[in-house]
Amino acid sequence: MAAKSTRIAIIGSGTIGLSFAALHLSKNPTCRVTIYDTRPDINDYVSKHIPGYLIDTDQISCMERLSIAKDLAEAVRDADIVQEQGPENSDFKVAVWPEIEKHAPGHALLWSSTSGIPASEQNRDMKDKSRLAVVHPYNPPHIMPLLEVVKSPTTSEEVVERTMEYWRALGRTPVVVQKECVGFVANRLAFALLREASSLVTQGVVGVEDLDEIVRASMGPRWAVAGPFKAYAAGGGEGGLQSFLEKIGGTIQNCWDASDEDTQKGNIKIGEEWQQDVCQQADRAYGVVNTAERDRKTRKVLEAVQTG
Amino acid sequence: MAAKSTRIAIIGSGTIGLSFAALHLSKNPTCRVTIYDTRPDINDYVSKHIPGYLIDTDQISCMERLSIAKDLAEAVRDADIVQEQGPENSDFKVAVWPEIEKHAPGHALLWSSTSGIPASEQNRDMKDKSRLAVVHPYNPPHIMPLLEVVKSPTTSEEVVERTMEYWRALGRTPVVVQKECVGFVANRLAFALLREASSLVTQGVVGVEDLDEIVRASMGPRWAVAGPFKAYAAGGGEGGLQSFLEKIGGTIQNCWDASDEDTQKGNIKIGEEWQQDVCQQADRAYGVVNTAERDRKTRKVLEAVQTG
Repeated sequence: MAAKSTRIAIIGSGTIGLSFAALHLSKNPTCRVTIYDTRPDINDYVSKHIPGYLIDTDQISCMERLSIAKDLAEAVRDADIVQEQGPENSDFKVAVWPEIEKHAPGHALLWSSTSGIPASEQNRDMKDKSRLAVVHPYNPPHIMPLLEVVKSPTTSEEVVERTMEYWRALGRTPVVVQKECVGFVANRLAFALLREASSLVTQGVVGVEDLDEIVRASMGPRWAVAGPFKAYAAGGGEGGLQSFLEKIGGTIQNCWDASDEDTQKGNIKIGEEWQQDVCQQADRAYGVVNTAERDRKTRKVLEAVQTG
Repeated sequence: MAAKSTRIAIIGSGTIGLSFAALHLSKNPTCRVTIYDTRPDINDYVSKHIPGYLIDTDQISCMERLSIAKDLAEAVRDADIVQEQGPENSDFKVAVWPEIEKHAPGHALLWSSTSGIPASEQNRDMKDKSRLAVVHPYNPPHIMPLLEVVKSPTTSEEVVERTMEYWRALGRTPVVVQKECVGFVANRLAFALLREASSLVTQGVVGVEDLDEIVRASMGPRWAVAGPFKAYAAGGGEGGLQSFLEKIGGTIQNCWDASDEDTQKGNIKIGEEWQQDVCQQADRAYGVVNTAERDRKTRKVLEAVQTG
């Protein structure tokens, strides 16, 4: 599909929308992208911000293939893919899909970038509920390879397959999430670690900056190369994961028990007292983070994994 | 300290012991390493296995500076550093330190590589409890930069400082853990994510291999570059971590609540039923993991982070 001139409608031009627009334009060199957003300064806004997302790519070719639509109907009229990242509220999304369905071609793939509102909720008023899937990125999508393709119970296999095919052709890493669940998978995993991290900092075991350093020098690079199950399967040698869990299981269970106890003790809930100290430490350590530097290094890391 | 000819005694020659021996020999080009282990074939065993740990380094120089001691007293007699990775049981460690104390020079740094027995327990029968610290690696230490330097309540600041200095001079990433806690920091964080991962797999949300792929394409490379607090501070833009938690806090709390509920529901405890399916999936996906390939890629990733 990436070989043909794909037409992509980007609905909503926040940072995710622009990042996705840049991703399509730079990795799919014949596609055409149309952005629709209700903001009145949309032309100036896009011209000003999109170049920042088009690093190491032919900006002139990209800009020639990018246009701005005056309304939703115009944006989706010829679309092969409609990708929605409007306001993160259910009412908006429930209302927008029947509109899109009315104006977009019947073959168009319909994707929502939501991080929390499942397709089974968004598709309530759609005629054909089999067309909608969540395609949840890991920010920013023009840098990070992951796309979680989250099926609703009614999403068709054909939609899932065409979605996977498109992203694979662009060299990204789409992964099917088989069941809708709170937070999908990547955030669930990352937030579980964040909770443990916040709990350890709150107890004075380690500071915010030192905790980050620990992750950067251990599981970060390890998991860039082999995910947690593969990493621990390696730790089990010839017996694999089962052998690892037999050897280290006692320690793991002790950690889980301590974790439950500490999380309670430290009252690690959003909005509770622990947040203040943790946020102050982060502020002192980092101020406003230089994301350009982070993104440049991330590209290098991803390259190293691929060519290693 | 790395500039002088440091003498290092490695007590215990399992995979951690050999990996540490190789690390010292290759990164500290003037040091001398003495290994002590009770296994009868120690000479053959070390000659056979140590070259596998000495990649990209002058093996002849390393082997010339490596020797095997006949007994503990001989191993530690001239040591500047004694690094212990014997059997992971408290009785052994409590018994070995007074022996080491008796034979090692008074200035020698005393480090245990234990992953779970705190220095405050190991030092029970020592004359000078201020000398002992845990220096816990992330496996394998000749590849992974992290060393958790875990203080007991009696470990002296001078010991901590000299320990940090030594590892920094070798280009590693030592981090002080201020309080002894179950599992120290790196394992606590990684095991928290492993629990969430196992829970999601057990519920059929995603398979083992796809879960690994999700991590490899998202938080792995991200956390190789910026730890979780810095990554989320970046997500908050100018308002930093506080702003991120204000915007996304509801989603995070929903994830934590779902996590607690699911962990209970899926009964994610070591030895319970979930393990069988997860381990079978890992076996099918990976068989015996090729750690040489993993280590080669990990070196590349670490290089990319440093030079990015």
